[in-house]
Amino acid sequence: MIKTSNINEQRLWQTLMELAEIGASPNRDQGITRLSLSEEELEAKQYVIQLMKEVGLEVRMDAVGNVIGKLNGTDPLAPSVIVGSHTDTVNHGGGFDGALGVLGAIEAVRSMKEANVTLTHSIEVISFTDEEGSRFGTGYIGSKAMAGVLKEDAFELTDQNGISYREAFIKAKLDPTKYKEAVRKPEEMKAYIEMHIEQGKVLEEMDLSVGIVTDIQGPVWLEVQLEGSADHAGATPMNMRKDASLVMAEVMLDVEKTAISHQGVGTVGSLKVEPGGVNIIPGKAVFTVDLRHVDSHERQLMVKDVYLSVAKASEKRGITWTIEVKKEVDPASCSPEIVKILEESFQELQFPVAKLPCGAGHDSLIMSKLTNMGMIFVRSKDGISHNPKEWTSKGDCAAGTEVLFQSLIKLAK
Amino acid sequence: MIKTSNINEQRLWQTLMELAEIGASPNRDQGITRLSLSEEELEAKQYVIQLMKEVGLEVRMDAVGNVIGKLNGTDPLAPSVIVGSHTDTVNHGGGFDGALGVLGAIEAVRSMKEANVTLTHSIEVISFTDEEGSRFGTGYIGSKAMAGVLKEDAFELTDQNGISYREAFIKAKLDPTKYKEAVRKPEEMKAYIEMHIEQGKVLEEMDLSVGIVTDIQGPVWLEVQLEGSADHAGATPMNMRKDASLVMAEVMLDVEKTAISHQGVGTVGSLKVEPGGVNIIPGKAVFTVDLRHVDSHERQLMVKDVYLSVAKASEKRGITWTIEVKKEVDPASCSPEIVKILEESFQELQFPVAKLPCGAGHDSLIMSKLTNMGMIFVRSKDGISHNPKEWTSKGDCAAGTEVLFQSLIKLAK
Repeated sequence: MIKTSNINEQRLWQTLMELAEIGASPNRDQGITRLSLSEEELEAKQYVIQLMKEVGLEVRMDAVGNVIGKLNGTDPLAPSVIVGSHTDTVNHGGGFDGALGVLGAIEAVRSMKEANVTLTHSIEVISFTDEEGSRFGTGYIGSKAMAGVLKEDAFELTDQNGISYREAFIKAKLDPTKYKEAVRKPEEMKAYIEMHIEQGKVLEEMDLSVGIVTDIQGPVWLEVQLEGSADHAGATPMNMRKDASLVMAEVMLDVEKTAISHQGVGTVGSLKVEPGGVNIIPGKAVFTVDLRHVDSHERQLMVKDVYLSVAKASEKRGITWTIEVKKEVDPASCSPEIVKILEESFQELQFPVAKLPCGAGHDSLIMSKLTNMGMIFVRSKDGISHNPKEWTSKGDCAAGTEVLFQSLIKLAK
Repeated sequence: MIKTSNINEQRLWQTLMELAEIGASPNRDQGITRLSLSEEELEAKQYVIQLMKEVGLEVRMDAVGNVIGKLNGTDPLAPSVIVGSHTDTVNHGGGFDGALGVLGAIEAVRSMKEANVTLTHSIEVISFTDEEGSRFGTGYIGSKAMAGVLKEDAFELTDQNGISYREAFIKAKLDPTKYKEAVRKPEEMKAYIEMHIEQGKVLEEMDLSVGIVTDIQGPVWLEVQLEGSADHAGATPMNMRKDASLVMAEVMLDVEKTAISHQGVGTVGSLKVEPGGVNIIPGKAVFTVDLRHVDSHERQLMVKDVYLSVAKASEKRGITWTIEVKKEVDPASCSPEIVKILEESFQELQFPVAKLPCGAGHDSLIMSKLTNMGMIFVRSKDGISHNPKEWTSKGDCAAGTEVLFQSLIKLAK
């Protein structure tokens, strides 16, 4: 029995459904598209601004378009508790990824105001600019700018129509030269907390509505290129082959092995062989390896295992190889204090406590550079996200928001 | 020391080089393209007809465009010894695949005529229509018509410009309705012999110019489709995955194992995973398996191993699978009598005797349905064929042709 007596489940759901109309495909079958700084995304921000104003928050938009709604605490000098997520989506995404974190936070502070809860610390609800990175190829723009780690060359990136980030900023009435004005200081913040759909099936398998994130796994992306010899499949005996695809096959299975043995995750998601004829031995193979772990050292051991696997399998089969590191994001641990506060909220609400790592990246990964960070996960139907089928039930959205309500009060009291 | 005293090495090479001009790309870097019944291929046939006439053969073109040049034996009722290959090429192919077999046969009979060799049996040199199948997607048209196994629906096939085989026949002044007139009876033939480049590296590794083919491996082509679940690479623990690509990887390695243990060959040449994102677990995988063996029964055991491998790996990982047989060509054994005759010729020429299976398909595979069949392999540089880099040295071409000369005399005397 889920107890959600503080927040208004129906009202939360209504805002989720209203926001989901913005950028929705006409027949709803193609999901929702609100790419960074597109008309749809700006309309979503206006929706959020309007809602924050209705709730009575002090609303502003910062230099990079982050929407910030502040519920003032009694001590104007006390650092803020930050709570947020994003309202941009991927192409043909769903209505919960990001949106739940923003609208749930608004619902939580709205309920606090209605209940006349008195808080020492201010609470700032933030909808970050461009978490997904689907339009310009790189994400976390809003949180990076806030953490002071956004690099100026991001403004040179272009979308598929050739429009630069700089131009998109100007069109959205933002001044790209002023992005450093969005920087916030660590001393202005007490904590950052984010509620997000899980985008996995762990909670669903455990039959739980909500969970506590312990760590955010940082991904390492490798690209492996293998070169052997593209000979005739009929005329080349097995012992005279240099089949690049078989090295790939061995490495794919080794990626799984190392992930299991180090308790991380490892995936070969993209792969290609050449020339690709049915009767030609693949002379070339190119594939990616995505390795994630909550611990940098363990992740490094996984990376090492993959290098060893590539080198060993290639040597055995006379294949030449190169490995390129395409991406490397540091993992981050959630603050033990926030995990403890979340745990207390779960217990008060009589929710079973489930702790799990987070495999995807979020603004929380960036915000952890500024302040103590914590995350609440809400069950995703079938673990599907970035897809029109993305779904989280009304009751689960409410359960997560209730945890947020309870925990924000503890953090800001 | 290679002894090639009977045939004229220089003259053979000159005809090879002349034929290689027909359909050659302007800078020679894109190889030779003489697709079936194209202007270039018809020009090549005219070259062959002209050369046969010069040599003094009785030349005709049959109902499907096979060019046949006959050296009459003393007994007009004795069955013919057939020797041939083809002059069509793949797109951007080389100057030896097919051409060597036709021009070598012409050189061999030319040398016989010059040496006033008297033969009981007639020798028919044939350049078959469309061995490669590169234009209309199916090959062995000329030999199939001769063996009475060409199906009428072949004429409905279209090339990439939408031209049907029927139309191409008419344009080449052939009547597609009369294709059955090309059928030959087994009793008209004593033997079929074909010289061809190896298209593999076995002779090169053995440092030999020529070899004797023992069997032609027939290919079975399977297409395997696997379906699991395309989940997020970060958010899905290893034990909750249904990764179709890992079943593929296991099967790829099992294909190699079964090929080695059955002494056949097995290749996964074409493969694809979906959706293909770096951070998405492949929910689908599709790949081909090419299995070849000189023995149908052994090949069937290999096919069974692949089915078992797919079923076992899929069951373990919760993947659904289908396997479709896309092609199944019976293997063929070379006639022991012809192998013996070839062996005698090798010994007389003081060539080391090397016997090897043939992995690629040839007109000989079809002709074996009509008569005793044998094949001579000539060394291919780096095993490369179907490529502008295809190359066989002048000396090796002469060595193979000398074997052909000796063996044809033994067969036709």
